[in-house]
Amino acid sequence: MGQIVFVGLGLHDDLGISLRGLEETRTAKRVFIELYTSLLPDFSKKHLERAAGKEFREVSRKELEEENGKVVLDAAKDGKVVLLVPGDPLIATTHVALRIEAEKHGIRTHIVHGSSVLSAVMGLSGLHNYKFGKSVTIPFPDETPSQTPYEVLVQNRKLGLHTLCLLDIKAEQKRYLSVHEALSSLLEIEKNRKMRKVMPETLVVGISRAGSNNPMVKAGYVRDLINYDFGEPPHSIVFPGKLHFMEAEALIVLAGAPERIRRMVK
Amino acid sequence: MGQIVFVGLGLHDDLGISLRGLEETRTAKRVFIELYTSLLPDFSKKHLERAAGKEFREVSRKELEEENGKVVLDAAKDGKVVLLVPGDPLIATTHVALRIEAEKHGIRTHIVHGSSVLSAVMGLSGLHNYKFGKSVTIPFPDETPSQTPYEVLVQNRKLGLHTLCLLDIKAEQKRYLSVHEALSSLLEIEKNRKMRKVMPETLVVGISRAGSNNPMVKAGYVRDLINYDFGEPPHSIVFPGKLHFMEAEALIVLAGAPERIRRMVK
Repeated sequence: MGQIVFVGLGLHDDLGISLRGLEETRTAKRVFIELYTSLLPDFSKKHLERAAGKEFREVSRKELEEENGKVVLDAAKDGKVVLLVPGDPLIATTHVALRIEAEKHGIRTHIVHGSSVLSAVMGLSGLHNYKFGKSVTIPFPDETPSQTPYEVLVQNRKLGLHTLCLLDIKAEQKRYLSVHEALSSLLEIEKNRKMRKVMPETLVVGISRAGSNNPMVKAGYVRDLINYDFGEPPHSIVFPGKLHFMEAEALIVLAGAPERIRRMVK
Repeated sequence: MGQIVFVGLGLHDDLGISLRGLEETRTAKRVFIELYTSLLPDFSKKHLERAAGKEFREVSRKELEEENGKVVLDAAKDGKVVLLVPGDPLIATTHVALRIEAEKHGIRTHIVHGSSVLSAVMGLSGLHNYKFGKSVTIPFPDETPSQTPYEVLVQNRKLGLHTLCLLDIKAEQKRYLSVHEALSSLLEIEKNRKMRKVMPETLVVGISRAGSNNPMVKAGYVRDLINYDFGEPPHSIVFPGKLHFMEAEALIVLAGAPERIRRMVK
């Protein structure tokens, strides 16, 4: 009976995979890898192939989405196939869809988790994870002008919750939205909506390269962070909601926020 | 200059650590381990010590919380110390507090992420991660009778969002709240609040042993799941909000939900 094991690569490079994930890869009949749903800046396919003792076949967005993962499903019919994916598997809906297809075809599926940008960014921000509301992806402004991120922010703020904003990536075109672009795009929306949710004096946290050796975490006001150099991608943003005093302390000590944010503590 | 590297152990056992995490552990001057903030059912300290080529010193809740991690801070003054923690570091606020203490003492800190129960459970549920609202921990009913989980559920439902409920653990006493206990406790609150949010016919997803070789994911109505045998801990619960048709499909195919939940798709 066939089997697909979805193995998370974790963050940033080829050392993010877990020991169990490497073991599953070593013992698989065939290994596929998908590298377009998320950016792993320092990932070396060769290094991981060497560690696993076999070659990986890279699958494209077209193969996974338009062709419903046929190439993976076919290979999985009579043995164990591993699909390596960035971050934690099943966070991208593409992989949930493939998993459903597999189970419908009588192919068993198993998950080896990896670290996810969601919990990494929550943790690096120093804010309490159970105070985050709905998260949202900020799209490229030229493509899909969307009010959604602003609306999610309004909704979370009303409830005093933090908002985690992932920034869009187009891996095939090597385009990664930056903190600068994301804040500019939100300020544009603010001009029309005028709900005073993204103002020059709004507190925000920018995070870049979570999971690398040199992640950057910087808290401050929009007017300061919009021109702050966060370096190489990927970037993320967190808009804090109500602050507990320990959260304010974390933003000041760990992310260089101005001391006067203590006044925001409720 | 001293340094503390917080290394995530990921989920379930001693194979959840990343290759980078193991490498950091191998090269550390001293290694501490904390095993009370989360349950790793099949974790073998000995196995990981063998893989790392050194012994680990286990730290207690008292040492990390009441004594503010003095034992770790002292060791980190003149070299690299690793603190191994379950899941993804900094998700437990204890570790954020220790990180702040370290930085205030001039000790650098670095994070090696691990897989987190938050994204693991979101992924295993088959529901879209960006449709989860605030998450919540359901406490033991005998200790801190709390309306919070019910209130979080009411709030998320109003917005059509899913709710992830972690179930409390008391690692020192080897007590782990079960799906049965958690649902019973919510039904008790329902009796007083009468907002019809946790009824026998409410759809819910129970998840046990995320990250293991035999996780269980079962979707159904409260009346059915309350007596369903989820086996060994840890357990978690997800209350779905509005369902996309692909989410309903995932619950049916991957979690055995009744076909008639398709009617809930908006």
